[in-house]
Amino acid sequence: MTLDSQTTAALPQPRFSERRDRVREQAISYLMHQAVENPDCISLAAGLVDPSSLPVEETQAVVQSMLADDDYARKVLQYGTTQGSATLRNQLVKHIARMENRTIDELEIGADQLLLTTGSQQLLSLVAEMLLDPGDICLVAAPTYFVFLGVLHGVGARVIPVATDEDGMQMDALESQLRQLEAAGDLPRVKLIYLVSFYENPSGVSLSAERRSEVVEIAREWSRDHRIFILEDAAYRELRYDGPDVPSVWSFDSTRESVILAHTFSKSFSPGLRIGFGIVPDALLEPLCERKGNEDFGSANFNQHLLARVFEQGLYESHVEKVRTSYRRKRDAMLAAADEHFADLPGVNWIHPHGGLYVWMSLPESVETGFESPMFRQATQVERVMYVPGEICYPGPMEQRARHQMRLSFGVETPESIADGMQRLARAARAVL
Amino acid sequence: MTLDSQTTAALPQPRFSERRDRVREQAISYLMHQAVENPDCISLAAGLVDPSSLPVEETQAVVQSMLADDDYARKVLQYGTTQGSATLRNQLVKHIARMENRTIDELEIGADQLLLTTGSQQLLSLVAEMLLDPGDICLVAAPTYFVFLGVLHGVGARVIPVATDEDGMQMDALESQLRQLEAAGDLPRVKLIYLVSFYENPSGVSLSAERRSEVVEIAREWSRDHRIFILEDAAYRELRYDGPDVPSVWSFDSTRESVILAHTFSKSFSPGLRIGFGIVPDALLEPLCERKGNEDFGSANFNQHLLARVFEQGLYESHVEKVRTSYRRKRDAMLAAADEHFADLPGVNWIHPHGGLYVWMSLPESVETGFESPMFRQATQVERVMYVPGEICYPGPMEQRARHQMRLSFGVETPESIADGMQRLARAARAVL
Repeated sequence: MTLDSQTTAALPQPRFSERRDRVREQAISYLMHQAVENPDCISLAAGLVDPSSLPVEETQAVVQSMLADDDYARKVLQYGTTQGSATLRNQLVKHIARMENRTIDELEIGADQLLLTTGSQQLLSLVAEMLLDPGDICLVAAPTYFVFLGVLHGVGARVIPVATDEDGMQMDALESQLRQLEAAGDLPRVKLIYLVSFYENPSGVSLSAERRSEVVEIAREWSRDHRIFILEDAAYRELRYDGPDVPSVWSFDSTRESVILAHTFSKSFSPGLRIGFGIVPDALLEPLCERKGNEDFGSANFNQHLLARVFEQGLYESHVEKVRTSYRRKRDAMLAAADEHFADLPGVNWIHPHGGLYVWMSLPESVETGFESPMFRQATQVERVMYVPGEICYPGPMEQRARHQMRLSFGVETPESIADGMQRLARAARAVL
Repeated sequence: MTLDSQTTAALPQPRFSERRDRVREQAISYLMHQAVENPDCISLAAGLVDPSSLPVEETQAVVQSMLADDDYARKVLQYGTTQGSATLRNQLVKHIARMENRTIDELEIGADQLLLTTGSQQLLSLVAEMLLDPGDICLVAAPTYFVFLGVLHGVGARVIPVATDEDGMQMDALESQLRQLEAAGDLPRVKLIYLVSFYENPSGVSLSAERRSEVVEIAREWSRDHRIFILEDAAYRELRYDGPDVPSVWSFDSTRESVILAHTFSKSFSPGLRIGFGIVPDALLEPLCERKGNEDFGSANFNQHLLARVFEQGLYESHVEKVRTSYRRKRDAMLAAADEHFADLPGVNWIHPHGGLYVWMSLPESVETGFESPMFRQATQVERVMYVPGEICYPGPMEQRARHQMRLSFGVETPESIADGMQRLARAARAVL
């Protein structure tokens, strides 16, 4: 066969793995596609962070000091380890203690319980990989973070929604689901309870302190022949604008055996550095590290040392305070605009979040908000404003999901565009109501 | 149940996924453990790069210029995309053209065929995830890159070794293996041929130009009812010290349908930035991006823009030339020391590499070199010099592997320590011979 004949012979299609089908057509891809298709919309959809809050000066300062020391510069440009920089992990133990309002000793963990990842997304994915076979069960709040629903789908997990109110996942509903699963003989497949514990994406609600303690007890009690883990996603924890400062679910796990606590610096510092981390129970640490070894044998060492310097130089807390101030103002702008433009619309209501990036709004149940709905078309095509349809934040068959809600982000736009966007959205809603 | 009783109740063990067992106890973990246990050894084992060659000044210059422009600074600190920065991908198309000695037009690809990853390791892992179910087959050179053997093991693949000589994987041996697989009814499971095409880790050999063309033909011819891909790992391509400058295997794939070309900047620039990329056939691009979306939805945007600036400011080529000069000197030091200390040892021989980081040495077949062997103990405990046992670079049951070889790296030590280390290693060999 010659090179010329090569170009004419048609090659057969690839034969992919079973996993390939599971990762197909995630909601996030469709959403990003919509964003690209509608570039001139005001975006109340994007989960991007406020560009004006990004730490330009802080990054300049620490990179300069980091590279000025020649030995240190060579260290940060060299390979790190799969688990991640011990320098940063030691800083993070102090950081966790501050967030929990505890001393380091009271935490009863060391830096060796921490795993650094490419955003917290990679930690969530590693946990799913190492715990869940196809058909294994993860319980989630309904609604919840739709990207993690994609991860669960990607490993073939069965996802059970648990009813949620303004205090987060309802513990009686969780126990009722567990009882039903037990009755069906499915308890051996229950591996994980996933909780976005602070200002949940998309609903904005936080799990109450009482339920934090309860969910740890429930996970323990139902760990009959194997351990059920709680994956606590604390991505928005540091974006608190008012309301109580509650400790993590993890802090209620007195033996440190049940809760995986996932954090990220994408919201509080810079998503461009892609640094997340987890506090990992002993039994899971080696499996997660070994899997990460296969995936990439370590996230960028340079970035980990950069962030460690930010902590060492005391630049972190003051930056986060600036970020909070900026988002608080934008949350207030969104809530004020909601009051102004939606208050007189019958059957419309929304949740007042004390932190995070989202306002969760419900239209009358008859008004669908999905990508193919008149509401979405009216909003994006006529009014030029984009939101995230609520239905993608639920697991399971579409006919069982609430389809009349919207996740409204105040992350990326200015207070003025947020007000403008909310007015446009109200006009769209009026047009379809 | 109270918090106090919590601490006394023993929790059952976790029930992991099937994958958890597959990623257990990789050779790389054991090797790193050995390195930690023997910190005062001269390391002819580490795959780290030469610290003196790391781009401190270049990184300082580009970070400063990148962050001085406030708008650009905010862009690089923000989220990027899953596929990776278009700015960098456009630079990389030019870079590939330079490496192939072709014009950009002659490449017949665009920046949209490129996927940026966390090192090339992540690309290798994504390909394995999207193509290989447990029992699916990948053919590899014997010996080959042991970390990728771990990745293949991690997805449950069956790995078939193909005999190799000083021109790389033998094409008649490859065809013979394919015929045997066909006769056994296993051809439908053959998905992938993995090749480290330039200065293979560990053997140091490169695939000859003639075989590059042949392997593309063979992959096409044997693609009967589904497409067989070639995964070309070109990690060491830019570390050429002498010998011919051959084009990639990918360049012989005239329809761009069969070869995935994986590159990394860990060897030529900085491993601390963890930037790799792949040129990906159309049929694979979406699956790999979607899987990466689940794993981390994108590697660090900051680092990608940093590297793009290195190219824009013309700092890359001159840096790589410095790197080559430094490693050439170290390779020469290792080969000279091998001549001096091993030439009179009967049955000992080694390959003269024209690039890369490794010298592959064979002892007499009766002398095992594994972690538990007298040779390894003599080297690490008595002579305080560390190498990588050759046996971990072969797939399959230990009794079928060659066990008398060593991978000797000249990456991390100075020419003087390399000479010292080789003398120690020869003493160890003499002691056990």
